[in-house]
Amino acid sequence: MIQTDILIIGAGPTGLFTVFEAGLLKLRCHIIDALPQPGGQLAELYPKKPIFDIPGYPSVMAGELVDNLMEQIKQFEPGFTLNEVADTIEKQEDGSFIVTTNRGTQHQAKAIAIAGGLGSFEPRKPELENISKFEENGIEYFVKNPEQFRDKRIVIAGGGDSALDWSIFLAEVASEVTLVHRRNEFRGALDSVEKVQELKHLGKINLITPAEITELHGDDKLTAITIEKEGEKQIFETDYFIPLFGLSPKLGPIANWGLEIEKNAIKVNNALDYQTNIDGIYAIGDINTYPGKLKLILCGFHEATMMCQSVYQRINPGKKYILKYTTVSGVDGFDGTRKEAEKAVVKSID
Amino acid sequence: MIQTDILIIGAGPTGLFTVFEAGLLKLRCHIIDALPQPGGQLAELYPKKPIFDIPGYPSVMAGELVDNLMEQIKQFEPGFTLNEVADTIEKQEDGSFIVTTNRGTQHQAKAIAIAGGLGSFEPRKPELENISKFEENGIEYFVKNPEQFRDKRIVIAGGGDSALDWSIFLAEVASEVTLVHRRNEFRGALDSVEKVQELKHLGKINLITPAEITELHGDDKLTAITIEKEGEKQIFETDYFIPLFGLSPKLGPIANWGLEIEKNAIKVNNALDYQTNIDGIYAIGDINTYPGKLKLILCGFHEATMMCQSVYQRINPGKKYILKYTTVSGVDGFDGTRKEAEKAVVKSID
Ligand SMILES: Cc1cc2nc3c(=O)[nH]c(=O)nc-3n(C[C@H](O)[C@H](O)[C@H](O)COP(=O)(O)OP(=O)(O)OC[C@H]3O[C@@H](n4cnc5c(N)ncnc54)[C@H](O)[C@@H]3O)c2cc1C
Ligand SMILES: Cc1cc2nc3c(=O)[nH]c(=O)nc-3n(C[C@H](O)[C@H](O)[C@H](O)COP(=O)(O)OP(=O)(O)OC[C@H]3O[C@@H](n4cnc5c(N)ncnc54)[C@H](O)[C@@H]3O)c2cc1C
Repeated sequence: MIQTDILIIGAGPTGLFTVFEAGLLKLRCHIIDALPQPGGQLAELYPKKPIFDIPGYPSVMAGELVDNLMEQIKQFEPGFTLNEVADTIEKQEDGSFIVTTNRGTQHQAKAIAIAGGLGSFEPRKPELENISKFEENGIEYFVKNPEQFRDKRIVIAGGGDSALDWSIFLAEVASEVTLVHRRNEFRGALDSVEKVQELKHLGKINLITPAEITELHGDDKLTAITIEKEGEKQIFETDYFIPLFGLSPKLGPIANWGLEIEKNAIKVNNALDYQTNIDGIYAIGDINTYPGKLKLILCGFHEATMMCQSVYQRINPGKKYILKYTTVSGVDGFDGTRKEAEKAVVKSID
Repeated sequence: MIQTDILIIGAGPTGLFTVFEAGLLKLRCHIIDALPQPGGQLAELYPKKPIFDIPGYPSVMAGELVDNLMEQIKQFEPGFTLNEVADTIEKQEDGSFIVTTNRGTQHQAKAIAIAGGLGSFEPRKPELENISKFEENGIEYFVKNPEQFRDKRIVIAGGGDSALDWSIFLAEVASEVTLVHRRNEFRGALDSVEKVQELKHLGKINLITPAEITELHGDDKLTAITIEKEGEKQIFETDYFIPLFGLSPKLGPIANWGLEIEKNAIKVNNALDYQTNIDGIYAIGDINTYPGKLKLILCGFHEATMMCQSVYQRINPGKKYILKYTTVSGVDGFDGTRKEAEKAVVKSID
């Protein structure tokens, strides 16, 4: 059982920054996310796009902001359970909670911070017979670990940035990359479209358009797929099929945790600490709602900070908290590192 | 009379970021500050110190954060009334406000955002007879414009960073720089102390310690001061005397505006829009108070953002506001510039 002070559900910017604010208060965090990487919407939906309204950043690439947040929280050693969906929650007698994922991983914590954004990102799956049978037996909806595809034959389907970018990336890793799309036109960054064009001409990406995958073949494991192009069907041998048709966020299991839900979001006490109707469960960032709520990254940062104060009081009842400025007191990591401002000297001049 | 949509009192990080959020909503801003430069506490008290809890910045110098905020808001062309203290406020019949400074500058706006931090920064003045007579006639408590001192003789008094840093800076500008401090020891960044030591040896800074200024001389304008060192008095000719004994923030005139004040801070409605007890006057950042309030920069950013939404409704009653992501919609400056993400292309690959 994973034990921590604050269990954070969602590794978006809000969940990540929570680790920092909690760390300042000497509280440890562990994060669960359905996606294979931290960053939430920023990492999954627009990593290479600039954001203009992060305070103090006239412009910052979404992916860079995530990297910076990861760097900022590193010293507080957050734990991660990635690729898993927080599924059930149980309140214990001692007031703590046990959260179990869809894969059975158990986490125990004194407070729960739901930073689940628009919900857990779930892949849009193609409608193919037997598809569930091949999931993780040749079908992958995410590229979790590119090394998995080293020297393998892979077929990617899709016409957007993910399909383009993973085709480019895996062209260097897999033995054979085939990209199938139901149109001739791709929609993505100009760079990416041009790079795929180039790799196609170099013979490093095999492009089949306009075409669709219509059947899956294999016993336990996928061994081949049927590709239909302009009415003609062809059986095509492959080790992996990676459909990248986008993700849709689903509030999912959290909807059944007894939380007050309004328009797909969790109601919180914004006048104080962003706690939900269940004592000890907080909701911060895009996933919560209150009068005037704005689904903005900078608001999630504030909510996370206010929440950590409340959790501190919960975990240390009666202990007085004194706000310390990081500039003045420095930051002591759980990993033994310390960040601090250069000290002023008191020195005579002669 | 200066006219604007939101009149912001205080050019600290909260006031500055307000310009950005207002700009996204097509609202114009003007800022009043008692200090000669924007940045509030960051610029005045710790410009060269790192802050570790700005989200997305593992570390950022306070001065750099101010520069970045200024860059971020530039396109929304904020107006500035610097070196002046917002003194009185009058509500007009049309619901707008007129704010007048201690120098009589008048500003009219539909909404007032008090982002006054700990209050307006006022210099600690030495206790000297006639001192007020020489203010702006040879005595300056701030270096507002270094060029004012070009080829002049100046005496700086003080033992901290400001005294050290301005002595160093003005050694290249003034014809003669004398630094007087009542101890031999200075308290500041090691760099600065060492630099003053070096300039002293080069004969570019004249150091008199331990010593104090005890008298001021001159008719209309200051012409000389008395320096007392170890019991001995000496009359010393100078064009300027710059006492840099630190600043102390004073809530000052704002305390008389009829706002609900609690522990030197202004009470606001944090559950909605950070409005005060007076309709149309908001208080954001360090200057406000509400249950759980944290005097942190990142909280000011959130408060500013929420407030701008409320002002938008106030100025555009009944108009529906639709949140737009800067990444998706770009940012259109009042100066005609546009920031935007690179567009996705729809392009066929052949
Ligand atoms: C194209 C686009 C442009 C945008 N531009 C801007 C902008 O310019 N400025 C701005 O401020 N905002 C912008 N946004 C919004 C911004 O991305 C969100 O406000 C932000 O991502 C919210 O952060 P979060 O941490 O609350 O949630 P998210 O980033 O949504 O992260 C939530 C995470 O929780 C996970 N999760 C949810 N439920 C579960 C569960 N049960 N188990 C496991 N994991 C779970 C999800 O998989 C996800 O990774 C934009 C959004 C998009 C899509
Ligand atoms: C040494 C030190 C270290 C700090 N470290 C951190 C840190 O690590 N992290 C963090 O988040 N915060 C830190 N802080 C606190 C942080 O600086 C404040 O939270 C922040 O400056 C508040 O911003 P603000 O815009 O609300 O107000 P301020 O920065 O205080 O700016 C307010 C401005 O309003 C002006 N003003 C007020 N009244 C009037 C008036 N009537 N007329 C004209 N002008 C007026 C003042 O002159 C001032 O310039 C630190 C503070 C100090 C002193």
